[in-house]
Amino acid sequence: MTPKLNLLETFPNTNSERNYLITHIAPEFTSLCPKTGQPDFAEITMEYIPDKLCVELKSLKFYLNSYRNDGIYFESVTNKILDDLVEVCQPRFMKITAKFNVRGGISSIIKAEYKQKDFLETI
Amino acid sequence: MTPKLNLLETFPNTNSERNYLITHIAPEFTSLCPKTGQPDFAEITMEYIPDKLCVELKSLKFYLNSYRNDGIYFESVTNKILDDLVEVCQPRFMKITAKFNVRGGISSIIKAEYKQKDFLETI
Amino acid sequence: MTPKLNLLETFPNTNSERNYLITHIAPEFTSLCPKTGQPDFAEITMEYIPDKLCVELKSLKFYLNSYRNDGIYFESVTNKILDDLVEVCQPRFMKITAKFNVRGGISSIIKAEYKQKDFLETI
Amino acid sequence: MTPKLNLLETFPNTNSERNYLITHIAPEFTSLCPKTGQPDFAEITMEYIPDKLCVELKSLKFYLNSYRNDGIYFESVTNKILDDLVEVCQPRFMKITAKFNVRGGISSIIKAEYKQKDFLETI
Amino acid sequence: MTPKLNLLETFPNTNSERNYLITHIAPEFTSLCPKTGQPDFAEITMEYIPDKLCVELKSLKFYLNSYRNDGIYFESVTNKILDDLVEVCQPRFMKITAKFNVRGGISSIIKAEYKQKDFLETI
Amino acid sequence: MTPKLNLLETFPNTNSERNYLITHIAPEFTSLCPKTGQPDFAEITMEYIPDKLCVELKSLKFYLNSYRNDGIYFESVTNKILDDLVEVCQPRFMKITAKFNVRGGISSIIKAEYKQKDFLETI
Amino acid sequence: MTPKLNLLETFPNTNSERNYLITHIAPEFTSLCPKTGQPDFAEITMEYIPDKLCVELKSLKFYLNSYRNDGIYFESVTNKILDDLVEVCQPRFMKITAKFNVRGGISSIIKAEYKQKDFLETI
Amino acid sequence: MTPKLNLLETFPNTNSERNYLITHIAPEFTSLCPKTGQPDFAEITMEYIPDKLCVELKSLKFYLNSYRNDGIYFESVTNKILDDLVEVCQPRFMKITAKFNVRGGISSIIKAEYKQKDFLETI
Amino acid sequence: MTPKLNLLETFPNTNSERNYLITHIAPEFTSLCPKTGQPDFAEITMEYIPDKLCVELKSLKFYLNSYRNDGIYFESVTNKILDDLVEVCQPRFMKITAKFNVRGGISSIIKAEYKQKDFLETI
Amino acid sequence: MTPKLNLLETFPNTNSERNYLITHIAPEFTSLCPKTGQPDFAEITMEYIPDKLCVELKSLKFYLNSYRNDGIYFESVTNKILDDLVEVCQPRFMKITAKFNVRGGISSIIKAEYKQKDFLETI
Repeated sequence: MTPKLNLLETFPNTNSERNYLITHIAPEFTSLCPKTGQPDFAEITMEYIPDKLCVELKSLKFYLNSYRNDGIYFESVTNKILDDLVEVCQPRFMKITAKFNVRGGISSIIKAEYKQKDFLETI
Repeated sequence: MTPKLNLLETFPNTNSERNYLITHIAPEFTSLCPKTGQPDFAEITMEYIPDKLCVELKSLKFYLNSYRNDGIYFESVTNKILDDLVEVCQPRFMKITAKFNVRGGISSIIKAEYKQKDFLETI
Repeated sequence: MTPKLNLLETFPNTNSERNYLITHIAPEFTSLCPKTGQPDFAEITMEYIPDKLCVELKSLKFYLNSYRNDGIYFESVTNKILDDLVEVCQPRFMKITAKFNVRGGISSIIKAEYKQKDFLETI
Repeated sequence: MTPKLNLLETFPNTNSERNYLITHIAPEFTSLCPKTGQPDFAEITMEYIPDKLCVELKSLKFYLNSYRNDGIYFESVTNKILDDLVEVCQPRFMKITAKFNVRGGISSIIKAEYKQKDFLETI
Repeated sequence: MTPKLNLLETFPNTNSERNYLITHIAPEFTSLCPKTGQPDFAEITMEYIPDKLCVELKSLKFYLNSYRNDGIYFESVTNKILDDLVEVCQPRFMKITAKFNVRGGISSIIKAEYKQKDFLETI
Repeated sequence: MTPKLNLLETFPNTNSERNYLITHIAPEFTSLCPKTGQPDFAEITMEYIPDKLCVELKSLKFYLNSYRNDGIYFESVTNKILDDLVEVCQPRFMKITAKFNVRGGISSIIKAEYKQKDFLETI
Repeated sequence: MTPKLNLLETFPNTNSERNYLITHIAPEFTSLCPKTGQPDFAEITMEYIPDKLCVELKSLKFYLNSYRNDGIYFESVTNKILDDLVEVCQPRFMKITAKFNVRGGISSIIKAEYKQKDFLETI
Repeated sequence: MTPKLNLLETFPNTNSERNYLITHIAPEFTSLCPKTGQPDFAEITMEYIPDKLCVELKSLKFYLNSYRNDGIYFESVTNKILDDLVEVCQPRFMKITAKFNVRGGISSIIKAEYKQKDFLETI
Repeated sequence: MTPKLNLLETFPNTNSERNYLITHIAPEFTSLCPKTGQPDFAEITMEYIPDKLCVELKSLKFYLNSYRNDGIYFESVTNKILDDLVEVCQPRFMKITAKFNVRGGISSIIKAEYKQKDFLETI
Repeated sequence: MTPKLNLLETFPNTNSERNYLITHIAPEFTSLCPKTGQPDFAEITMEYIPDKLCVELKSLKFYLNSYRNDGIYFESVTNKILDDLVEVCQPRFMKITAKFNVRGGISSIIKAEYKQKDFLETI
């Protein structure tokens, strides 16, 4: 798998006194099925409440594009995107939703989320 | 009714430290009406929070296809799919939603769910 | 008004150990306005958690069709369908939603529900 | 402004033992802007849980039509419809939602609600 | 950046005894990307429960239009609109939702909200 | 079958110097299946270029409602509505489109049209 | 009926060497039913190929608004708008489409068009 | 393949003096892939101008259902349905459109039509 | 008005032996109303059959963005875009469709097209 | 660019006595921008009337997937797919429509078609 974490850049959150929600929707995600080598397609939605750092949008595009020729399962890619984004920007809350196109007559959606310990607020 | 449970395969959940939600949507489900022998059609949605095991997608397709020539009622098939999937992958939470096409001018939706004892978390 | 209650048939709920939700959607309901005698049209949605009995679908169609030439108000027909279905199948929970077409530039929706005493669970 | 309250008629609620929700949706509401005299257009949604009285539908149409040549602000008309309907039928709960068409590139929605003292139930 | 706060005008809330929700939806918002100078486009939704003052609609249009040639980031513009509107009309509650068009294959939504201290009610 | 033709009324076409097209769309048509006695539902669209007479709208409603308790096939009812309307208002052109709801998993559309001899113009 | 023709203003067509199509869509048209006095609502679409003059947009708004309290039939208002606009701007081609909201369960569309003698081109 | 042609029944066309168009839409067609044995799903639309005979709707349902366990290619099944229906009811014109669900990320539509020799009219 | 024509770039059409159609859809066009100075918004669709040259996409974006602070009428901007693109790439056929957002309750669409002399083919 | 033509396979058209239309819709096409190396996404629609050969569906999938890491312009890829498919199956008629996702705020559609000499029929 191509190296990924160092593709992500951040910038300081200038409104950290307030809990606010940022959502990025990327409908053009594609990777490869690790079994068959055939392409998979998904819409990735990333929601988070930033703490000190925000994810830079152009670097996020390059990060997502880096999966293009990687063989990786639906469940793995969703959890890995969550792990990588949490590691890079340490948000108060983050949720990843990945909607995969129909394969064998079945479409799939994977949702995973992260919360800072003791963080209760919702938006 | 054709044998079914042994059609389902699983693989280990490599992110079991986290509660995350997997949804599979199968819009091409078909079985037979046990009274008239005529075909019924439904969209089956399966949502679950895996514990140690995930359902393998291709085996899930074969499992659902195995109902094609079985005569079975709406309420029964929904509860049986839930029972079979719970038995095979022992999830923390699972919910089955079956939307059946119009019959006699009426469409029907059946929803059934399962939770591990004392499991409280929702996503 | 034509007799109705005896049109409804039931069958035993073979999954009564579990609270699950059955929804029937009937978009072709029609009755008459008791004031003008002109036809009214509605979509009737019936949701319930069965206890010992389920409503038989074909008999439900005949029951709803029996209103075709009855003069009855929006509010009355919604509450009467709820009362009749509760009497016949004694569900743990039931909710009727009736969406009536535009009359005089105004459309109307009536929702009524029933719960067994001390029944708390929702789906 | 034309007189309005006496246009509204009621009829007895014959199902007052139960809390049920009545919704009327009027997509053809029109009044005048008090500043410019130009027409405004809105969809008015009225939801309520009746107590002893229900609003008669034809009188509701005449009531809403009576605003046709009145100059009145978005916020005022929404609150006035709520006040008038509450005065006439004394519901357990009532909510008015008014969606106004685009003016100057901006559309507006006003929501106001009323509850009888100590009324807690929701539908 | 062009001066903005003095563009906003208010008028007295004549229904301040009641908590009611005003929503303004502006689908024609445009500003410039501070990095590239290229135009950005968004739909801005402003929801608030007024206290003593309401925002005047025409002045709101001029206020939003004043961003047309300003270079400003997605996160900043959303929080600034919230800060400005709160300062001008001191609402009990206010929430801004900004949906930005696709850039680099990714669309973004920013949501930020404000509540008066100890204000609990929701609509 | 209830008598029908005398339910239809006409009024003079005051713009007969011009070929213009009138379309009436009636989504609430219902009749009975002559085999099973069960209700059928359709949306009837009537398009015509009037000559000396137009169809009066309220009488058209009563005419369509008169089929409510008649047993009649899809093909017959469409051709009969065309025959009746042509007889009553002698249009330059007329086309009937009847879209019937799903029966046995199949929906049906019937289209029939009439032209005055040597009438060529289309709109 | 209020006077109308003098409300319409025009401006010179600076591209008259080319046949091009202008379409104005006015979804907020309202007039009164001449029989019942109750309001009617329609979306008026005006398409034309200008010759020497174009219709000024603001004057068109005032012209359409002037029908607000006039009692006039569907067929008449459509033909009258066509006659008035043709008289004022003498287009090469013009077509009016008026879609009226449901009345008595039936919606109506009226289409009328005008062509300069010997004008053949379509767009 | 199961025998099919004798499943189709007809009834006399009582409006044969007129060319009119009958359309049947069957969204629940299913057969098997002859290569893999896996189920295929399609919406079959059948349009025809009847001559002396119409296709009986219930027999059409049984005819289409008879493909349920047959292995047959997309192109073949579309042409075979056309051949069978033409043989049985000898229409003036007939067109079959089969829309197949996504397989391998690609959906397919097959259209085939038949005309009686020298039949020119279209509807 | 800012200079524009020199913003447009072209590249050679390598498939000029064939008539094929290129469509570019730009939903984010904005200019200013020459009367009021307020912003206008439109979706511009450009269709053309190239001859020797194609329009370069990035330069087209800069060309359309250059109208951002120009005061120009709906009819003028549509015809000017057509004139400029024809001058720059000399297509066999070109059509511009500009859909302007609601102003004063009325939305507008302007369509203009160009053909090389004696060019007959359509796609 | 990876070799492509030998990926495409055909099978004999067993209904060549009839002109019928086959449409394949591939919404998951992706290639690279030859300038920036960034991914492009398109929906490719292929319509054709077969002569002696049909395109095999699985080989078509592999053929389209082979563009995944090729740098190629919108106009070129559309014409190349047409050229390749025509060379391989020699159809009577073929049309390719490629709808490309938004880039720089502009989406693009390219349509190209081929006809056998003297082939006139359309479907």
